[in-house]
Amino acid sequence: MTAASIDTLDALEKRDPAERERALMARLPQLVARAQQAPGWARILKGVDARAVTSRAALAALPLTRKRDLKALQLRELPFGGLNATAARQLRHVYISPGPIYDPEGLGQDWWRFSRPMYAAGVRAGGLLQNCFSYHFTPAAFMVEGGAARIGCAVIPAGAGQTEMQVQAMADLRPDTYVGTPSFLRIIIEKAQAMGADISSVQHALMGAEALPESLRAWFRDNGVPHVFQTYASADIGSVAYETATAGVLNPGMVVDEDVIVEIVRPGSGEPVAPGDIGEIVVTVFNHDYPLIRFATGDMSALLVDAQPSACGRTNVRIRGWLGRADQITKVRAMFVYPAQVINIQRRHPDILKARLVVTGRMANDVMTLHCEVAQPLPPERIEAIVASIRDVTKLRGEVKLEAPGTLLDDGKEIEDRRDYN
Amino acid sequence: MTAASIDTLDALEKRDPAERERALMARLPQLVARAQQAPGWARILKGVDARAVTSRAALAALPLTRKRDLKALQLRELPFGGLNATAARQLRHVYISPGPIYDPEGLGQDWWRFSRPMYAAGVRAGGLLQNCFSYHFTPAAFMVEGGAARIGCAVIPAGAGQTEMQVQAMADLRPDTYVGTPSFLRIIIEKAQAMGADISSVQHALMGAEALPESLRAWFRDNGVPHVFQTYASADIGSVAYETATAGVLNPGMVVDEDVIVEIVRPGSGEPVAPGDIGEIVVTVFNHDYPLIRFATGDMSALLVDAQPSACGRTNVRIRGWLGRADQITKVRAMFVYPAQVINIQRRHPDILKARLVVTGRMANDVMTLHCEVAQPLPPERIEAIVASIRDVTKLRGEVKLEAPGTLLDDGKEIEDRRDYN
Repeated sequence: MTAASIDTLDALEKRDPAERERALMARLPQLVARAQQAPGWARILKGVDARAVTSRAALAALPLTRKRDLKALQLRELPFGGLNATAARQLRHVYISPGPIYDPEGLGQDWWRFSRPMYAAGVRAGGLLQNCFSYHFTPAAFMVEGGAARIGCAVIPAGAGQTEMQVQAMADLRPDTYVGTPSFLRIIIEKAQAMGADISSVQHALMGAEALPESLRAWFRDNGVPHVFQTYASADIGSVAYETATAGVLNPGMVVDEDVIVEIVRPGSGEPVAPGDIGEIVVTVFNHDYPLIRFATGDMSALLVDAQPSACGRTNVRIRGWLGRADQITKVRAMFVYPAQVINIQRRHPDILKARLVVTGRMANDVMTLHCEVAQPLPPERIEAIVASIRDVTKLRGEVKLEAPGTLLDDGKEIEDRRDYN
Repeated sequence: MTAASIDTLDALEKRDPAERERALMARLPQLVARAQQAPGWARILKGVDARAVTSRAALAALPLTRKRDLKALQLRELPFGGLNATAARQLRHVYISPGPIYDPEGLGQDWWRFSRPMYAAGVRAGGLLQNCFSYHFTPAAFMVEGGAARIGCAVIPAGAGQTEMQVQAMADLRPDTYVGTPSFLRIIIEKAQAMGADISSVQHALMGAEALPESLRAWFRDNGVPHVFQTYASADIGSVAYETATAGVLNPGMVVDEDVIVEIVRPGSGEPVAPGDIGEIVVTVFNHDYPLIRFATGDMSALLVDAQPSACGRTNVRIRGWLGRADQITKVRAMFVYPAQVINIQRRHPDILKARLVVTGRMANDVMTLHCEVAQPLPPERIEAIVASIRDVTKLRGEVKLEAPGTLLDDGKEIEDRRDYN
């Protein structure tokens, strides 16, 4: 990419970090007070003096609200568990995510704050993007709609099916950008190749909702889509953090959105970890309609520390991206094993297409085996190298078992606990 | 419905008809001039002096542009055949309807003018509707989005699948209105009955994209949805005409939209028929981005004449609704037979669930048979009554053949010409 990607959506992204921090802290009392107008937050934040929540320490003293508890909260009080500060019928949309979990969208422009990740991915006024998230029941496609409207980019509302029509639309309408899941773009490209269709106009892609392995990012580069970006967002929060590039080269980490406060906490405790340590992502969102205060996502990440300022000019803190689910953290021989460690091991060995750590045995006699999908059998020294990485990363002994591609379950689990607890 | 349905979206709908006519005619020169800025219309309207198009007679002298020719026009000049007055990348959306036909949507609020049919169907600010048109590639769902945003009604973007989730959303969120096809609402209601789910909040339905037989409207009434309205719209024009009700009783005909001029013409000629005669619907649309001048839809209807002013207070002309496809008009024994006549015959006989007129034989020896799906065999006198209706309506002799439900093809054809032309 060229100079266009060095600029940012607005000046907020280039603020002095201390100025940003002051501004965020100054907004906290109003956010807490607004939340307390909603019956659900009034219960959760009972006795909290909103005026006193003016620092990260004061924020960290507030209770967590866990994403995994949303369903129970909502069943008690439909549709939003009383966490909405705007009445359901004053909203623009009501969504149903699997669960079902109900999610609101208010009337404000770019309500999900998706223009930032989209701008960082190269979406511009006068452009055309093909929106391949589903528009039905879930909000991802409308996050893209809101961002495109703010930026002034036209949209092909394509959804996540009808692959041949996707290819024909790209060939005829020549969009510059794909937005959707990584797996569906791969399906589209393979279909275009089979049809002999020219979809080379698509130079940018903004990916979400699925992990994007570096091997797949390389595959996109090799198959005509050089500028591939990830965003970390969710159906309740909207945009949390996003990748950026400078002169066509991806910058490290994901830049945090201007309207959220991210904490990384020790799962289960709510207590912030030391900067750079892996922990659960907890998000506080400055949203007038659906304020979220210390919302525990269940996703793992870490702050990027010791890094140079991002070459893109954005000054906000960065996180390392998605490092697995908090609920997969497992104790093996008295040591914690984190999904992020499995991802870390996998990244050190390009031979591994996909990996899953399986823990078996009875308690106190745990066996840890890293199942690795590989394209072809590996020579013993490469297997030894993986065993060494396991020891290096987890401080535990583990075995390696090679598997044919497609063997491991596609359920997003890095760690599977098969121990017999009886 | 109550007093709420007697009012209208705005005062335009209650204008003095002469005032409306003057206003529409006064807008024509500007519309034609705007269209002539687009290369496609510049070709079609070559030599036309926009300033002189100030009357229905002057409009009727302009050439027709047929919907069925759009694909060829677009293939010559992607994506819109040069009929768009706003550049593709300055639009909000680009759609792909089956064909494929590309359709634009500009940035203006309620671009498809759907707030009028929605308001007439009882959609109000502070309401909640379940939008069961598909959002993928085609524009119907976004017509609803635009209308809901203008009115201030919240939307569940549900799409046209996942029936169980549709039922669950209705049971939990309690929307007041369904918008979508008639057939899908029937599927949802039957699923809710099977699940024992309470979806009684849905009291209003706005239907489009499919014919709505009166028998199905009665079925909805008998199954808990008393207020069912049809709209006539298309992916290129947006809203053309819509049903209204007063005190819960449907008014005759469909009221024409405030920003279109409807002509009813003799198919093939472009020449307006006498008021009240059946002909092809030709629409001129006051749209800044995608002006359509004498756009021949291929659909048949007729102006409603000799009727009282609509009890709803709307003063615009009304049409009789969709009366079949123009391209099915057939000549039998030197007499024209119209799809609308088949619909007319069917309406006289509640026994007929579905009908299709099949013409067979060699030229000059035509045989006309009305195939009728019926729930059970009919006694001879009822068959005789149908034969009498055929003679009465078409002035031609025809036979009746009874068929089991589900026998006739579901291809929207009222008339099928099976004659041997060799």
